[in-house]
Amino acid sequence: MEQKRILCVGLVCLDIINVVDSFPEEDTDTRCVSQRWQRGGNASNSCTVLSLLGAPCAFMGSLAAGPIADFIVGDFSRRGVDISAVAWQQCGETPCACCIVCQKSGSRTVVLYDTNLPDVHSDDFSKLDLSQFQWIHFEGRNADEQVKMIQQVKSYNATQEVKNRITVSVEIEKTRQSLYQLFSHGDVVFVSKDVAMYFGFQSASSALKGFYSRVKDGAVLICAWAEKGADAMGPDGTVLHSDAFPPENLVDTLGAGDTFNAAVIHSLANGGSLQEALTFGCQIAGKKCGVHGYDGIVE
Amino acid sequence: MEQKRILCVGLVCLDIINVVDSFPEEDTDTRCVSQRWQRGGNASNSCTVLSLLGAPCAFMGSLAAGPIADFIVGDFSRRGVDISAVAWQQCGETPCACCIVCQKSGSRTVVLYDTNLPDVHSDDFSKLDLSQFQWIHFEGRNADEQVKMIQQVKSYNATQEVKNRITVSVEIEKTRQSLYQLFSHGDVVFVSKDVAMYFGFQSASSALKGFYSRVKDGAVLICAWAEKGADAMGPDGTVLHSDAFPPENLVDTLGAGDTFNAAVIHSLANGGSLQEALTFGCQIAGKKCGVHGYDGIVE
Repeated sequence: MEQKRILCVGLVCLDIINVVDSFPEEDTDTRCVSQRWQRGGNASNSCTVLSLLGAPCAFMGSLAAGPIADFIVGDFSRRGVDISAVAWQQCGETPCACCIVCQKSGSRTVVLYDTNLPDVHSDDFSKLDLSQFQWIHFEGRNADEQVKMIQQVKSYNATQEVKNRITVSVEIEKTRQSLYQLFSHGDVVFVSKDVAMYFGFQSASSALKGFYSRVKDGAVLICAWAEKGADAMGPDGTVLHSDAFPPENLVDTLGAGDTFNAAVIHSLANGGSLQEALTFGCQIAGKKCGVHGYDGIVE
Repeated sequence: MEQKRILCVGLVCLDIINVVDSFPEEDTDTRCVSQRWQRGGNASNSCTVLSLLGAPCAFMGSLAAGPIADFIVGDFSRRGVDISAVAWQQCGETPCACCIVCQKSGSRTVVLYDTNLPDVHSDDFSKLDLSQFQWIHFEGRNADEQVKMIQQVKSYNATQEVKNRITVSVEIEKTRQSLYQLFSHGDVVFVSKDVAMYFGFQSASSALKGFYSRVKDGAVLICAWAEKGADAMGPDGTVLHSDAFPPENLVDTLGAGDTFNAAVIHSLANGGSLQEALTFGCQIAGKKCGVHGYDGIVE
């Protein structure tokens, strides 16, 4: 039997990465040291990593036909990511982010336009054949609709034997009120350092203890904290920890969080323990920070 | 007989124009108010304007196949600009500029990558059938090569009757040492306010008087000075002036200089006097500042 896929639902965009010597002053002209086009977006990046880890995976998000979508489709195809679930929109434009990466300071400044393309709707989601998926990951965006999609997965699971049920993970990365409802809808919940700090937590472990009451019974809550590694908490209330695995030379942190999520999902989906998944996530994310883009994160 | 074309030689690039409320701080994420893709580059913009003014025109510059070039080719075609003279390069990428336009301050900050695509070579230029052109405009870039191209035009002109000779104009916009050799090679020379100020001139008229000794016998020197209008000087040494024609609402100044150049060239190529050309250039450039992009500059 063919292995079931991991589906990631969320944003795909074009990242135009401008590497500069120093951050430009307003109203000046700057020449970049280099520039590259890269497929971006959290869910889209996680698909790249899952594919590199050898997991059959699929992406679901919105695209609008045009030169940006052409580039993105070509890149998905190169990575072997299934995009038959993409919601092709008739209006709006495919999102594009201009990123300014400063070599000296290591800063990354992002100017994103993603406001005129409709998000994936639960009606789009209802057209999927859920039997092809073992895991569905939601990057929190249009949470009201995403909750409806998760309800569909729950209904589907209710009709299935345990071994055929789909695991649902959610990522709560942005500090946006509407996203917090997702806490109670994932079997695995990723919450960002940004959100944790916004709520006043100063560490991953304190964030896990503070947020755990929001997740559903039996769920796993995970919080990565950049160079401090990552913590996780399951239903037994124990806080697990993995240190970070920083590369010898820090080269590119863009997408490190998406890499962590993908590696954790991959490990759990293959029967790894929570501790194993956490450590694996930190290892692969660390490797990612040592290379430009994603080639070479699995060796 | 078919009307001869005006050829513009120089840069074409993709301008990604990000409109923001306020200029982003380093290491933050910003959402744009709007974003648009626009074909850019001085010579490329001047072709757009020439075409809108009804002049048959052609563009010569470098492109490398890929999604950026696809967008650019489509836009040239939409504007009716002939691109059969484009030098398709086998290595490098088509230049792309990320522009951050700030609504409040009106500032425009440009981060350009144009460093790995070879410029047009004089060997490319030698393949042109010069008899199809009445005017060739050079945006100063790889000036050493461009001087060789202009020599080719001179040789061609030496074989032709006066009425069939090609007029050569050059634009010296950037403060780059190698570009200043172009002063002596144009029948019409556009020098920018930037270059003039770099040389210590505080007005267009003082710049014309200061630079005129650098141009060749009989040449016309023109200097636009933003909201102060533009001045021009011909071989009789008289400084002509036109005030600016500011629009009611200043909307978008990107490409205003390229619009000015195109309108001046169009007027002179159709037998207008220097004063008529100068005034027409300021009028059309003013209209351009009142609209986004170029549609509506001729009404």
